Amino acid sequence: MTAVTDTVRNGVDTEQLFATLDLIKDQPELARFQFRVRNRWIDGAHNRSTIKDFYAAGAEDTTRSEEFQIDAGEPAILLGTDTGANPVECLLHALAACLTTSIVYVAAARKVELTSVESTLTGDMDVRGALGVDDEPRNGFERISVSFRVTGNAPEEKLREVVEQAQKRSAVYDMVTNGVPVAVEVTTN
Amino acid sequence: MTAVTDTVRNGVDTEQLFATLDLIKDQPELARFQFRVRNRWIDGAHNRSTIKDFYAAGAEDTTRSEEFQIDAGEPAILLGTDTGANPVECLLHALAACLTTSIVYVAAARKVELTSVESTLTGDMDVRGALGVDDEPRNGFERISVSFRVTGNAPEEKLREVVEQAQKRSAVYDMVTNGVPVAVEVTTN
Repeated sequence: MTAVTDTVRNGVDTEQLFATLDLIKDQPELARFQFRVRNRWIDGAHNRSTIKDFYAAGAEDTTRSEEFQIDAGEPAILLGTDTGANPVECLLHALAACLTTSIVYVAAARKVELTSVESTLTGDMDVRGALGVDDEPRNGFERISVSFRVTGNAPEEKLREVVEQAQKRSAVYDMVTNGVPVAVEVTTN
Repeated sequence: MTAVTDTVRNGVDTEQLFATLDLIKDQPELARFQFRVRNRWIDGAHNRSTIKDFYAAGAEDTTRSEEFQIDAGEPAILLGTDTGANPVECLLHALAACLTTSIVYVAAARKVELTSVESTLTGDMDVRGALGVDDEPRNGFERISVSFRVTGNAPEEKLREVVEQAQKRSAVYDMVTNGVPVAVEVTTN
């Protein structure tokens, strides 16, 4: 084994991971992060988010060289022209991505080498809520189902423990299952 | 005025919008939709969602000609290489996109012509929760702040009513503020 394979597991530098955890244990004030998204309406159901700057570990983080853009849209049946995944699909993506990264990091910390992590997420909704046709169905998904297939160099039981621990620590899983206070303010000029 | 400007407002075909609402009022069973995302781990914090098929109005919808791909990543401070916006930023994008589209549709239905809709969203978190350093901070954002700037051919009061109504009907706003039941299943071979 080389030094690289000792330290980097599943593409995660575990030495850096444990150093980060130790640093935050010693200086909890460094754990305060703020993430940001700017969005601009383009036309109809088409809008675009730009994502770059964020606050982390006591300062503005300036390591990102380029901004990310994500376009949103709706399919024809919801009066759009497919300019991007629709907002509820983006929420499913956020959940899939967060659980997957949590699985990969937890596995790296627990010395499990993964070979694949795949998932399918489904969200069921009665669109009468969001369309304002009926007050009874809620606006969002009634339920979300997540189906993971995880393979790696560990027994089934250990792989299942990794997924369970990832659920316990996933930021998006917490928010989607428990909700978050959202404050909205508006200016009109 | 031409027929087009009568029907299409803010890029939304209001004739089709009202026809859709009438159809769903008459046949509520057509309101059952299911959206889906498939995600695959690539390396480290890099994973990719593919989004195409969905169920709508009593059948599989086959109108989308191409799939959408959204890549996720993490910045260096969270052990990634910036392969995409991170999962919590994607959740903010989903919220921004859904509120914006809701504003645009509500405005179209209420005969308000918008000239711009811009927003900035911020999410504050103590990463000790998600990193497993401390059980006290929650894993996700403690709070989300949304700041909208909306302009159009209506008095301030009417523009504010449009935003309020959009909040009342937004699918992602509902899910992020109230939470959704999520079921996770795992296979390991």
